[in-house]
Amino acid sequence: MSRSIRLAVIGGDYIGPEVTAEAVKVLQAVAPSYDTTLETTDYDLGANRYLATGEVLPDKVLAELRDHDAILLGAVGGRPGDPNLPPGILERGLLLRIRFEFDHYVNLRPSKLFPGVPSPLAGEPEIDFVVVREGTEGLYVGNGGVVRKDTPHELATEISINTAHGVDRVVRDAFRRAQARRGKLTLVHKTNVLVHAGGLWSRTVDRVSQEFPDVTVDYLHVDAATIFMVTQPDRFDVIVTDNLFGDIITDLAAAVTGGIGLAASGNVNPDGTAPSMFEPVHGSAPDIAGTGKADPTAAILSAALLLDHLGLADAARRVEDTVHADLAERTAGTTRTTAEIGDAIASRVAT
Amino acid sequence: MSRSIRLAVIGGDYIGPEVTAEAVKVLQAVAPSYDTTLETTDYDLGANRYLATGEVLPDKVLAELRDHDAILLGAVGGRPGDPNLPPGILERGLLLRIRFEFDHYVNLRPSKLFPGVPSPLAGEPEIDFVVVREGTEGLYVGNGGVVRKDTPHELATEISINTAHGVDRVVRDAFRRAQARRGKLTLVHKTNVLVHAGGLWSRTVDRVSQEFPDVTVDYLHVDAATIFMVTQPDRFDVIVTDNLFGDIITDLAAAVTGGIGLAASGNVNPDGTAPSMFEPVHGSAPDIAGTGKADPTAAILSAALLLDHLGLADAARRVEDTVHADLAERTAGTTRTTAEIGDAIASRVAT
Ligand SMILES: CC(C)[C@H](C(=O)O)[C@@H](O)C(=O)O
Ligand SMILES: CC(C)[C@H](C(=O)O)[C@@H](O)C(=O)O
Repeated sequence: MSRSIRLAVIGGDYIGPEVTAEAVKVLQAVAPSYDTTLETTDYDLGANRYLATGEVLPDKVLAELRDHDAILLGAVGGRPGDPNLPPGILERGLLLRIRFEFDHYVNLRPSKLFPGVPSPLAGEPEIDFVVVREGTEGLYVGNGGVVRKDTPHELATEISINTAHGVDRVVRDAFRRAQARRGKLTLVHKTNVLVHAGGLWSRTVDRVSQEFPDVTVDYLHVDAATIFMVTQPDRFDVIVTDNLFGDIITDLAAAVTGGIGLAASGNVNPDGTAPSMFEPVHGSAPDIAGTGKADPTAAILSAALLLDHLGLADAARRVEDTVHADLAERTAGTTRTTAEIGDAIASRVAT
Repeated sequence: MSRSIRLAVIGGDYIGPEVTAEAVKVLQAVAPSYDTTLETTDYDLGANRYLATGEVLPDKVLAELRDHDAILLGAVGGRPGDPNLPPGILERGLLLRIRFEFDHYVNLRPSKLFPGVPSPLAGEPEIDFVVVREGTEGLYVGNGGVVRKDTPHELATEISINTAHGVDRVVRDAFRRAQARRGKLTLVHKTNVLVHAGGLWSRTVDRVSQEFPDVTVDYLHVDAATIFMVTQPDRFDVIVTDNLFGDIITDLAAAVTGGIGLAASGNVNPDGTAPSMFEPVHGSAPDIAGTGKADPTAAILSAALLLDHLGLADAARRVEDTVHADLAERTAGTTRTTAEIGDAIASRVAT
């Protein structure tokens, strides 16, 4: 009985399509062993489409995306400081629009330091944790505004929205993941200053923890969490946190586990009411586009998260294990092109 | 012509008074060489006073504090998780109240990796930057609230307030500091998501930069800033950022420069309309109180910032240089008590 997966691929800009091409190559290579076929549809979205046509994410495209089992995204973004690309256009109009429209309330970001990968941290710290970042609330809702713009009396506000519904569901998801891992959950927030939102988050974690007696619960202020991330990263198993804190600490987590060149992420709708989207944490890196220097590893690891999300846990593990083996064999000084890395991993997962 | 400084000392809780005692010792030792005398008044504030009396910061005490040239604070905070000490009580009622009432709009946090100090970062990175964190706006204003508390329909909000007045003055202060240092200013924000506040911050930096043609301006999203802090900390000279981002990145900065045991800070009112307050970044560490293990270095470096703020730049440099010499001589394995470190530094600055 074979299964067919309909995958939407948004390569995006610059190195984005270069890395998704390799991730798709790996997916196509691993699928047959799991009686699965993969149908991909490419969507041309991102800075370059916007600059050429003024379109960010037409409603029609959004509707088509919805009609897929999952989405793989490379990276979107133009050249830094491009005056024709105001900050927020692509973020609000494309990335965040998809996260919000498709209710990606679990923004999943695993951090693992693999053998052979150099970390900027001294010693050889053991790092293996997952951040469950809320993806549909907080300061990311875009609420707020500006009055008296460009006058000495300008006032700009940003409003963080946190609901019982939104916090409860992501906290539950995090508890379940902790239960399936080493049984430790750390809430990261800033409850001593953001007492309103912090109260809701803390009370929710306390309440839900009653249902997970086998999970140990811990709390850290976000500022302290950044300290432990560099001094004692092995204290973390699963971290649950809000949208903005999650954004910040996962970039830091990526940095200490070998860089955003390796960091994968999933924008997950655990209820399956819309397709989930998987993407490397890195950006579109216009400076190295076309040189073959882009490392497709983060995109390939994101594809592994995608397989896992679609219930193909064994296939996911095969891709991950292969990536780890490949990483362990990389030797300083030798460089392979984007496609060479993809080919190497694809041929290994196929056999 | 001798000068007299009226210093309010808020030791606070646990190790707080232990470290301020050493900082005062050093101030008293260095003052005579600069024709200065120091009159100190101790104020008993913090978790323990609150737990004993229910008082956080009586108006009368606030008025008395105002009548000083500067404030030295140790650390306030009770035992973690004390149910009698709800989150925010001391923060909102004491620390933030003083910052807001005394208009401490420049929260100054230098980060320097001194010779001999171990960093969690591999290699021997050069780190020497200053974070100018806005201190009176942003998400720290305490605006927001909760409706339908403890129901499935609870909604909690936090509102970030940013004004032209507030942003302009701190940005100017940061430009002036950059001009007096290596001439580089980095704005850290999240302009691609927080477009309202981010717009005000970016436009302000652009506008003010016209008046400082000798300062190079750079921008980083806060998530990317955390990456550079661990991979390329030498790219920073002066960072200007909002209250919450500043809170987060300065703890990280402290971690990479040897830990919050060494990190000093100043809550500065550059206009002199109220006394500025200087404090180590670390907390009250109930677990090591009374053991003599607390390192007074951060408090002593905070005292140096205090001297500098009061126009005693030479005395400030003398204290700093002495601390650096002391740090360079510390050898792994040997331990000195809080008082021994204070004594060593005090006797050196006196001669
Ligand atoms: C591009 C931006 C909107 C996005 C975010 O802030 O979530 C990115 O930083 C990320 O972490 O996926
Ligand atoms: C204690 C807390 C209110 C404070 C802050 O968040 O500013 C502390 O973390 C700091 O950085 O001084």
